[in-house]
Amino acid sequence: MDRLENELIKDIGEERYNHTLRVVDTAIKLARKHDIDLEKVKKAAILHDCAKFPGQINWLKMARDFDIILDNYMEYNQDLIHAPLGAKIAEVKYKIEDKEVLDAIYYHTTGRENMTLLDKIIYIADYIEPGRKFPGVDEIRKETFAHLDRGILLALDNTIKFLVDRNKLIHPNTLKARNFLLMDLNPKIKEDIFL
Amino acid sequence: MDRLENELIKDIGEERYNHTLRVVDTAIKLARKHDIDLEKVKKAAILHDCAKFPGQINWLKMARDFDIILDNYMEYNQDLIHAPLGAKIAEVKYKIEDKEVLDAIYYHTTGRENMTLLDKIIYIADYIEPGRKFPGVDEIRKETFAHLDRGILLALDNTIKFLVDRNKLIHPNTLKARNFLLMDLNPKIKEDIFL
Repeated sequence: MDRLENELIKDIGEERYNHTLRVVDTAIKLARKHDIDLEKVKKAAILHDCAKFPGQINWLKMARDFDIILDNYMEYNQDLIHAPLGAKIAEVKYKIEDKEVLDAIYYHTTGRENMTLLDKIIYIADYIEPGRKFPGVDEIRKETFAHLDRGILLALDNTIKFLVDRNKLIHPNTLKARNFLLMDLNPKIKEDIFL
Repeated sequence: MDRLENELIKDIGEERYNHTLRVVDTAIKLARKHDIDLEKVKKAAILHDCAKFPGQINWLKMARDFDIILDNYMEYNQDLIHAPLGAKIAEVKYKIEDKEVLDAIYYHTTGRENMTLLDKIIYIADYIEPGRKFPGVDEIRKETFAHLDRGILLALDNTIKFLVDRNKLIHPNTLKARNFLLMDLNPKIKEDIFL
């Protein structure tokens, strides 16, 4: 674990590493409220940003070098690449074999349809760790600790509106994650939804 | 055309037919500003809601009867079914063979990625016809006549935020339509977009 931490600080820098530690801390707090293997949570949390290299990076070249298949959105948005790239680096460099842990890293930025409990904890811990300051974050934090799924739905809704207001692309996985949770939380919505 | 109109009033009722006439009128006004076959626009506009039968309808059964393949979203949201069903009824009952016209009917509620000019005109005419009253509609009307794509992007953004605020599902095609237009209007967005 010490070797891992040293490698990680070298790769992502101290500031990003400090964010990572806050995500680990938040993820553990959430994990204790749910029935989940703590070791998996720690692994996914500590490595979630392992590919977030600071400075000017040629993300497209790096994705190619690691044989990562990018969707259109990732090609347009280099920032998104660190998530699938992180899953690959966690596997190759940090020898993570657990598919669940790798998936939680892969989807930690966009979310996905039908997220696992591990996906959810990593996604939302990254979103609400104490260093995050943006309008609405306190309400989302509170809701997340009261009811994980409702907290995540708030976070996804907030993200979608934020991106619309800023004329930014919205990854389809983010919408699918949101729609899935909405239906899961409101079974009756299946009958009387939409325009 | 007279026979068509009589059939249509019988099927969808007078109120919906009056909405249809306003959509036809709006679509023609838009069409005159663009390089498009007016006859196609009229056909798609007059028939866009041909499956919007009033009263209590068993939409799922009707979709099955017409061999329409529904996605998950349409199964949950019966209101969306009238669009693909309308495309089928336009083909079978009103003898429309033009795939472009049928597609414009099919996608008039959700939009889709890479919409045709005809798709766009029908989608937005339905959204801004003079009977529509909702916050923001005047701005969207104005923008649509000044710059079609920007008007449609505003309409899609407005729809997405409206549905988020009301805890309603958002069809993936609506997001794809919006993301596509955003990239089309802002080529530079391909480099510096997202979270």
